[in-house]
Amino acid sequence: MNHTLDSFRSYLKEMNYYSRACTLLSWDMYTATPKLGFQGMADALTFFSTKHFTLSTSDELLSMLEALSVPEEYDQLDEGMKYTVRTMLRDLRKMRRVPKDFFEAFIAEQSLSMQAWEEAKRTSDYSLFAPHLEKLIEMTRQQCAYTDPDRECYDVLLDKYEEGMDSESIDRVFTELRDGLLPLLKKILAHPLPESRIYQGTYDADAQKKVQELLLGYIGFSFEAGTTAESEHPFTSGFSRYDVRVTNHYYEHDPISAMFSAIHEGGHAIFEQNVDPALEGTAADDCCYMGIHESQSRFFENILGRRKSFWVPVYSRIQELLPDLKDIPLDEFVQEINHVRNSFIRTQADEVTYCLHIILRYEMEQEIFRNHASVDSLPALWNEKMQKYLNLTPENDSEGILQDMHWSDASFGYFPSYLLGNIYDGMFLEAMEKDLGPIDPLLESGQIHLCREWLNEKIHKYGCLRLPREVIANVCGQELSAAPLLRYFTDKYTKICGLE
Amino acid sequence: MNHTLDSFRSYLKEMNYYSRACTLLSWDMYTATPKLGFQGMADALTFFSTKHFTLSTSDELLSMLEALSVPEEYDQLDEGMKYTVRTMLRDLRKMRRVPKDFFEAFIAEQSLSMQAWEEAKRTSDYSLFAPHLEKLIEMTRQQCAYTDPDRECYDVLLDKYEEGMDSESIDRVFTELRDGLLPLLKKILAHPLPESRIYQGTYDADAQKKVQELLLGYIGFSFEAGTTAESEHPFTSGFSRYDVRVTNHYYEHDPISAMFSAIHEGGHAIFEQNVDPALEGTAADDCCYMGIHESQSRFFENILGRRKSFWVPVYSRIQELLPDLKDIPLDEFVQEINHVRNSFIRTQADEVTYCLHIILRYEMEQEIFRNHASVDSLPALWNEKMQKYLNLTPENDSEGILQDMHWSDASFGYFPSYLLGNIYDGMFLEAMEKDLGPIDPLLESGQIHLCREWLNEKIHKYGCLRLPREVIANVCGQELSAAPLLRYFTDKYTKICGLE
Repeated sequence: MNHTLDSFRSYLKEMNYYSRACTLLSWDMYTATPKLGFQGMADALTFFSTKHFTLSTSDELLSMLEALSVPEEYDQLDEGMKYTVRTMLRDLRKMRRVPKDFFEAFIAEQSLSMQAWEEAKRTSDYSLFAPHLEKLIEMTRQQCAYTDPDRECYDVLLDKYEEGMDSESIDRVFTELRDGLLPLLKKILAHPLPESRIYQGTYDADAQKKVQELLLGYIGFSFEAGTTAESEHPFTSGFSRYDVRVTNHYYEHDPISAMFSAIHEGGHAIFEQNVDPALEGTAADDCCYMGIHESQSRFFENILGRRKSFWVPVYSRIQELLPDLKDIPLDEFVQEINHVRNSFIRTQADEVTYCLHIILRYEMEQEIFRNHASVDSLPALWNEKMQKYLNLTPENDSEGILQDMHWSDASFGYFPSYLLGNIYDGMFLEAMEKDLGPIDPLLESGQIHLCREWLNEKIHKYGCLRLPREVIANVCGQELSAAPLLRYFTDKYTKICGLE
Repeated sequence: MNHTLDSFRSYLKEMNYYSRACTLLSWDMYTATPKLGFQGMADALTFFSTKHFTLSTSDELLSMLEALSVPEEYDQLDEGMKYTVRTMLRDLRKMRRVPKDFFEAFIAEQSLSMQAWEEAKRTSDYSLFAPHLEKLIEMTRQQCAYTDPDRECYDVLLDKYEEGMDSESIDRVFTELRDGLLPLLKKILAHPLPESRIYQGTYDADAQKKVQELLLGYIGFSFEAGTTAESEHPFTSGFSRYDVRVTNHYYEHDPISAMFSAIHEGGHAIFEQNVDPALEGTAADDCCYMGIHESQSRFFENILGRRKSFWVPVYSRIQELLPDLKDIPLDEFVQEINHVRNSFIRTQADEVTYCLHIILRYEMEQEIFRNHASVDSLPALWNEKMQKYLNLTPENDSEGILQDMHWSDASFGYFPSYLLGNIYDGMFLEAMEKDLGPIDPLLESGQIHLCREWLNEKIHKYGCLRLPREVIANVCGQELSAAPLLRYFTDKYTKICGLE
């Protein structure tokens, strides 16, 4: 027994080396690799991914996992190892039901499809992407049929990104949210705010980088266990709790984008930096639930980061770094970061309309996987929903159905996790204020660390030991509900817009 | 046959993936890894290095190389593959004569020794390093006895870094140089230059970075096939001709250090970026001769970079980026970058006294490997030679025998390649001016690309297909000699110091 456990630990270590190589190659490709060096890195990434995949589906691994799964062995494992054995065995069995030829063809199609999507988006020509999208949908269905023959495909997809959240639960909370949000949004938009002078300034990239370091330090990102870089789109990449990295992108006339990317990615990173060290090297040592992960980035970005009290301790230092902000008083800055506008692009949306962007995508995915909507009908369906929810019709598909990359690599089922994150946050905020009291006075007096420590203790340290539904139950003591998020929006925007 | 060649090519590709992983891990450790993430990267580096070593000494590789080495097969290979088969078989046979236990013990000792050296240097306590140095010397001898039982150990070591250059040749040119240099240095130092005002200024790191980009672009570094980063000590790291990277370090009150590091590392990188694409993936696709490699970095750094004509096209742009240089006229800047001073630290030495720093180290290595000097006697020997050549006695061993890391990881025999690089450069300069005419007018009129293209064509494109001695013969049409370097020094400093 001890022998099997030892062998298993060594095997995990070797798998970790390969996944580390993949993470590092990919990190480098997005942050450093020069144009002509890209192919060399991509080839190496394919090589090491294949090695990792081979290790994760091998007969040797299967027999170790089976040996460790018998009750008399399993019961002696610690919690991290239990999680690891259980989930790896489940995933390995699923993956071994997928024929190798099919798997390779699917990967190859994803790569072609991504290229086609890029070209389609660039030229705003949906017809270039449509045949690939059709093939990806078909192959996704096929893959689900192999891995989970007894379950409905879209539930399998949802489960992949947010385990245990099926479409019944999601339907319920999304509908609750949508029905509360649409009338509120109407009221908010009836009281339009003035346009800000912020975007008339010029903001040096090096100075914006200093602001990012300041904000990361302020929210509690550890620079001993993390670093930063630039990339086209901001992202977070973690090797272990000891090395979690965030990227950013700086826009000359928009200092707000990089500040909120820093806080958002910093939130992801703070999660990973605070997983219990005892879980290191197990499969539970980061958070694999996208909704929970997203709830942490968005808690920092929206729940904390869009309050005036958050900025009180740091705004004057930021003004020193970005001289063109000196004429903008804190109140004007805070007004702009809470400016609600209907807009086409999800990633640029404010926290209120963002929810509707996701609901739209969730409904689209249901049309595809539940109602078998034809690929040709999707752009019109998209535009119809945009009109219905955001009162806008895209002028072209680039600012409509082609805007996101998620469907081009078959990440169907991913979008809902963004909004689940927001919904969890409404619940977490109420739980936090129950424990700590109102958070505005804490933030204003520079005690943001109390909020972070609360999240560390209640959520981060568990990595992915607890399922999303268990996290909610343990932290909030109640069932999943959109009501807290709706209360948060209503209270906040009633004040901001001077609604009665 | 074709089958063996195909298998060999696939095998090489796999080896390349592992060495790419090692290069990338190590690049990341020096440029990005946060403090707490270091151990994770180091463990992965050990794992992938071991994988690479296993592949490079396997029975499978041996039998492929033997099959490709029989004349009827070998003769059909192209030049790059001939080089690859020949050198890999030679190195594999050598490495297989080293017992595995010994090899592992040697690697482990190097790692311990490096740690001991760091501590010894920090505390200036040679006694902490001495027992490790003794062990490394003994193990180095043992390793040579395994790999090359019939050759003298120090020649084996020299050969490792500059193939074909034995100590007889090196003795001859180093003695020639030393005997010419000492009287010249005496004359130079008898006409001391005024101290520069440059070091009274303050130079922003971001601005120095922009200067580096400017200089790299100016000398012909390709940003499509390369990038830059910061590290404690500047270095160059290449994945292939399509991805070569240089690092730099910025000092607040010394703008010259980073400028010359940029030019030096840029010279290394330009070499690697211009190897013949046909050699890609073979063992000949970068330059493995340290003297030749160093000759290229130093040609840019010293032969071109210390001339006034080099700076004429760019100095005013640099002054714009570094405002504290605006008061420093070009002539004062050029005077400072050619200021000769006796000093303790090799890496901070000017181009003239640098030669003596290397001769001292070469003589020390001869004392160790030829004359079996005891480890305890080395610090005194070092100080004696410092007095003899540079008229200085170190106050402590940190600024004496402990200053360089080379001996702490058993890189005995490496130092001479630095000076060989300088000596080659004297010869290359004469050959270049024979072809292109005097280079000052070229540089002054912004035609530095003609010099670079000459080096590309004469040296870079061959990668390591030609041995150093062949490069010299082909490019210069004469035997290795220190006379051209001496002529260069004499002409230059006669003018600068107003000697008659």
